[in-house]
Amino acid sequence: MIKAVIMPGPNQPLELREFGVPELEPGAVLLQTLGSEVCGTDVHLWHGQLAGVPYPIIPGHVSVGRVAAIGGAAADVDGRPLEVGQVVTFLDVYGSCGRCWYCTVAHATTRCPQRKVYGITLPAEEGLLGGWGEYIYLRPGVHIVALPPELPWETFLAAGCGLPTALHAVSLAEVAFGDTVLVQGSGPVGLSAAILAQLRGAGRVIVIGGPAVRLDMARRLGADAAIDIGAADEAARREQVRALTGGRGADVTIEATGVAAAVPEGMRLTRDAGRYVVVGQYTNAGVVPFNPHLDLNQKHLDVRGCWGSDVGHVYRAVQVLARYHSQFPWAQFVSGRYGLGQAQAALEDVAAQRVVKALIVP
Amino acid sequence: MIKAVIMPGPNQPLELREFGVPELEPGAVLLQTLGSEVCGTDVHLWHGQLAGVPYPIIPGHVSVGRVAAIGGAAADVDGRPLEVGQVVTFLDVYGSCGRCWYCTVAHATTRCPQRKVYGITLPAEEGLLGGWGEYIYLRPGVHIVALPPELPWETFLAAGCGLPTALHAVSLAEVAFGDTVLVQGSGPVGLSAAILAQLRGAGRVIVIGGPAVRLDMARRLGADAAIDIGAADEAARREQVRALTGGRGADVTIEATGVAAAVPEGMRLTRDAGRYVVVGQYTNAGVVPFNPHLDLNQKHLDVRGCWGSDVGHVYRAVQVLARYHSQFPWAQFVSGRYGLGQAQAALEDVAAQRVVKALIVP
Amino acid sequence: MIKAVIMPGPNQPLELREFGVPELEPGAVLLQTLGSEVCGTDVHLWHGQLAGVPYPIIPGHVSVGRVAAIGGAAADVDGRPLEVGQVVTFLDVYGSCGRCWYCTVAHATTRCPQRKVYGITLPAEEGLLGGWGEYIYLRPGVHIVALPPELPWETFLAAGCGLPTALHAVSLAEVAFGDTVLVQGSGPVGLSAAILAQLRGAGRVIVIGGPAVRLDMARRLGADAAIDIGAADEAARREQVRALTGGRGADVTIEATGVAAAVPEGMRLTRDAGRYVVVGQYTNAGVVPFNPHLDLNQKHLDVRGCWGSDVGHVYRAVQVLARYHSQFPWAQFVSGRYGLGQAQAALEDVAAQRVVKALIVP
Amino acid sequence: MIKAVIMPGPNQPLELREFGVPELEPGAVLLQTLGSEVCGTDVHLWHGQLAGVPYPIIPGHVSVGRVAAIGGAAADVDGRPLEVGQVVTFLDVYGSCGRCWYCTVAHATTRCPQRKVYGITLPAEEGLLGGWGEYIYLRPGVHIVALPPELPWETFLAAGCGLPTALHAVSLAEVAFGDTVLVQGSGPVGLSAAILAQLRGAGRVIVIGGPAVRLDMARRLGADAAIDIGAADEAARREQVRALTGGRGADVTIEATGVAAAVPEGMRLTRDAGRYVVVGQYTNAGVVPFNPHLDLNQKHLDVRGCWGSDVGHVYRAVQVLARYHSQFPWAQFVSGRYGLGQAQAALEDVAAQRVVKALIVP
Repeated sequence: MIKAVIMPGPNQPLELREFGVPELEPGAVLLQTLGSEVCGTDVHLWHGQLAGVPYPIIPGHVSVGRVAAIGGAAADVDGRPLEVGQVVTFLDVYGSCGRCWYCTVAHATTRCPQRKVYGITLPAEEGLLGGWGEYIYLRPGVHIVALPPELPWETFLAAGCGLPTALHAVSLAEVAFGDTVLVQGSGPVGLSAAILAQLRGAGRVIVIGGPAVRLDMARRLGADAAIDIGAADEAARREQVRALTGGRGADVTIEATGVAAAVPEGMRLTRDAGRYVVVGQYTNAGVVPFNPHLDLNQKHLDVRGCWGSDVGHVYRAVQVLARYHSQFPWAQFVSGRYGLGQAQAALEDVAAQRVVKALIVP
Repeated sequence: MIKAVIMPGPNQPLELREFGVPELEPGAVLLQTLGSEVCGTDVHLWHGQLAGVPYPIIPGHVSVGRVAAIGGAAADVDGRPLEVGQVVTFLDVYGSCGRCWYCTVAHATTRCPQRKVYGITLPAEEGLLGGWGEYIYLRPGVHIVALPPELPWETFLAAGCGLPTALHAVSLAEVAFGDTVLVQGSGPVGLSAAILAQLRGAGRVIVIGGPAVRLDMARRLGADAAIDIGAADEAARREQVRALTGGRGADVTIEATGVAAAVPEGMRLTRDAGRYVVVGQYTNAGVVPFNPHLDLNQKHLDVRGCWGSDVGHVYRAVQVLARYHSQFPWAQFVSGRYGLGQAQAALEDVAAQRVVKALIVP
Repeated sequence: MIKAVIMPGPNQPLELREFGVPELEPGAVLLQTLGSEVCGTDVHLWHGQLAGVPYPIIPGHVSVGRVAAIGGAAADVDGRPLEVGQVVTFLDVYGSCGRCWYCTVAHATTRCPQRKVYGITLPAEEGLLGGWGEYIYLRPGVHIVALPPELPWETFLAAGCGLPTALHAVSLAEVAFGDTVLVQGSGPVGLSAAILAQLRGAGRVIVIGGPAVRLDMARRLGADAAIDIGAADEAARREQVRALTGGRGADVTIEATGVAAAVPEGMRLTRDAGRYVVVGQYTNAGVVPFNPHLDLNQKHLDVRGCWGSDVGHVYRAVQVLARYHSQFPWAQFVSGRYGLGQAQAALEDVAAQRVVKALIVP
Repeated sequence: MIKAVIMPGPNQPLELREFGVPELEPGAVLLQTLGSEVCGTDVHLWHGQLAGVPYPIIPGHVSVGRVAAIGGAAADVDGRPLEVGQVVTFLDVYGSCGRCWYCTVAHATTRCPQRKVYGITLPAEEGLLGGWGEYIYLRPGVHIVALPPELPWETFLAAGCGLPTALHAVSLAEVAFGDTVLVQGSGPVGLSAAILAQLRGAGRVIVIGGPAVRLDMARRLGADAAIDIGAADEAARREQVRALTGGRGADVTIEATGVAAAVPEGMRLTRDAGRYVVVGQYTNAGVVPFNPHLDLNQKHLDVRGCWGSDVGHVYRAVQVLARYHSQFPWAQFVSGRYGLGQAQAALEDVAAQRVVKALIVP
């Protein structure tokens, strides 16, 4: 039998449940879980903040495993045949149809209505479709990315889903060499964005966030300035950013906070004719006032909402990590490891921001 | 002596004043005014809604004239030497430095702090620096664009400053062939945007605006649907746009209203992963609430503030008009012509929307 | 029994063959052919100029049909359920995997190694997989686009595969309003490109091509100048283009000739810092000399190879045709209609350029 | 009196000449030269390979100096007033008009016909308009960029004009995170490109070049693979690149060789639907054959010629160097320093590739 963690419903205690060993369809892959991330989205799931979740589910949408069995043959995104024993990750988003208007005409695959997400929108009754278990069942068509041997799997999970999310956002931001990049938020997405800004040749990286432990991490990973949101009100923050940017504001700003009021503030912290990418408004945090004339039109500002990741983001995240993981302290983002039986504690530690990042290691 | 209209200050009656014939510096050009536009900006000027205006001024920022005298030699943007008798227009924006950070590093010339604008930010005490006079003094360095012989100057003024403004906005919108383009607003900018959308190969053009006379014009210039803002509330407008777009919303939306509430509405009227260009918030119309999660982030929406025009926009507007002016009814945008002595009436007719567009013809 | 034309192999006479009525898999669709295009690619096929063709094949890659039967249920690209009796077209490219590196990371679906093409790379032994027959079998997953009622199917076929090809090329060309667009070639791709340039707001459209009948068509569809390639050598052509463009060359050039020497010539006909899209080099026409310093580097030229079409190009082509087909003479591109028994004559008439475009109408 | 090096004409020995101390026009700046680069362009100048050079000239187009005197007031690109004693560099390109069609409509300032270049197209008879002298006269309007205190001026010169050139090229290349970037050429432009590729988050950097000393430098600065052009013919090079890229070729290739045959080779080394930037064809190296079907069209390749630098490239180069100069060995690019009297030797050492980079230090 295979053990996995079940989230029965919002605000209900997690449970351990046993599943039978699944039969593999042609093209399916069974992974023995090496580790799975506990991230802010799992807290949202537990708080019931996401719509359309078919509880009970097995949480865990970013995971690494060792190929335990293959249903006939399967290949990774590079087209290389998979082998038993290989260490891989996979894109949690599964089932984008490739036929609908969004997939084919708009080329906006993250808007495909058919997409399902491992660990989020696939119910436990359909099987081992989340990472917090001893094994994960990859249906035929799941996009699998092999981890290169030089990349420790713990480091991949430490970067976690924050890295492809940040990679998507920073790509949209079109950072030019020497730009000042401002990151709002110092959680996993913000911290990875602050690293990636340096891997776009930013001339200066500023992080606004908190608490102190996260700002320390921001400085350690290379931020040129870290502004404590608890120690400076909006006017003071704006003053500091202006002082660091010759009075102009940031060339590029990345929002990764989850706080609605951060968005109009970010518009004001960005220079005229700059770019502002909003990636952190993952759940509905309510309405907020802004001034279309001052904050947008007169500033000639470019504001880009950034939603979801696709295979390319995960694939590229793996390449970037493999190449630069010894240069930046992604591995230190993990401050806690938990067995399957400790999943509840992991979730609560993340919810309370007692850790930057937690891993479930079965 | 040369007669010109003076706007002494906000909400004060216009006056006629006489100026001496100016001496020409090397490179300067004296234009005999053929006509000058009265546009919404002039109403804003009269209402004192723009900051930094050095009243008294000679209004008139989009004008056409015949070259009356040249200070030595001058050339148009194409590098062709100007000749006396030639019919030309010019970019109202003058004096962008070409040396500041915005001009040289950001390539955002509309943000150059040195820029001055004929008819807006140049005082009457410095001379004939606005279009509502018998002559206009073009300082050395003013960007001059020759009107091709096949383009009637009245048609150029009928399109007026709305056309380069719309051209800038529609260019930023990156319309793809077959896209549904929604235009919010049926004033001169909105109507030109509805034409230009067709000159980007839009598959469907929808205009939301009013009053009826402007919606009729929208239909005549090719809009596939014209929604009367007076006859449908936001929910009804949204319903109509959804019905016209297979439930998705517009691929591209251009805001040209001046009403702050139009901006969050426009976000909602645009499809997920679409583009929204905000060009109509030229004056401060206050704050408005929006929901960063629903209206921006989850929609993966691209929102672009569009401010000001540069030489290229005016040059391209002239090329487009010369090529397509017999295909679209730009010439019909003008519903009133006024002598210098009737400038006050022209201003009031535009302010009251009794005309779509008025011309001062000295 | 169902009749269809067979191309047994390169340079062999076409044959009529009879097929049984196929059984429909779930999701498959049987089309009763209304018409199918004969285009230059079919001539290439007949001359054996394309690699990897599994002769014998049923030619015909752009076709329109009436839905005769549906295997359960199927939907068009817009997600609307198909109904028997409906008139539709479909993307000839079929089977792009959506999983390989090109599909998912590079977002270059035209490079997917799994793609097959109706009428080109699917063998007759697998069934009615080409358009020159009484019926066409659409396998599950074929991308179907419904023709709107206002668009005559003959007009869609008259534009044919040249239109999505040109649409792809002109989209890549990033035409700015008022640009001078030069089209090299006056076949179906070139003529559609000359129309689409106007639907990007080009200020001037120049076509270089021949023979006279095609140049007449170019003028009729709106080209501002049509240069006869038979009456002007390269130097003379260059002189004419320079004269039309203030000495600078075209802002944007689209190559649609199939002649290798046209490519370096096109580089020279394009202005410095312009864009050049090469779409007509569909078959290997050999090597040609060029000067990387003069033709590319010093010109700061952007040269873009354009290969293949995807669903979006066909979908957008349908929208554009539906909206603008009465404004431009696409319908007149067809100069010959042929029954299934006349397919050989159709092929030879196209090969000899005796017609611009031929249709097979079973 | 002020001493400066004169290049009297092609292939003539350099000379030392004395100039009087110039009077400063308003806005002009006199720099006391700290150092000036000897680069490949100076060798081209000496060999008479550039057209339109008004010999005799004072060579030296990338230089650093200390502000010795200011004609009234002058400011740097950031708008900060200059002060005597400050260490600055400046853009060699001077006099772009800001009014011609290329400057204003095409936004292609490197094509402005008015541009002059310090050290290249300004004659010695007009004064100290090149860097190989004790002082440099900066005319009003020269774009000045202050060096930040943390950036040693020798390091700026070590990167030299290769850095803004490479920065322009790599910016045009639109490197995506994780891309494999191939650099053809291991001179100063190629080596800086190999660094900048890492500052775009490249997943793998490959350099093809020689001789061994430069390939060692390539490896030291982070290249993942360095292929010796002397030890592998085109087929072998292609094989190695394919082996390193899963058989696909490089996602992005930067050409920095000066050898015409490198260009079609680079097309073949780049993957389908990749990007290829050609920056190294600075002088006319003759024609070369290529196959438009195989090398361009069928590959769906994007090829971009890259010519010249503007202020933004130099400004951004300074920001990048200031931020990352301790991370990458730019400072080690300099292998020789020469006094004014040794300029001839410097030129010959660079011509013979006995040094990577030489500096004139008066």
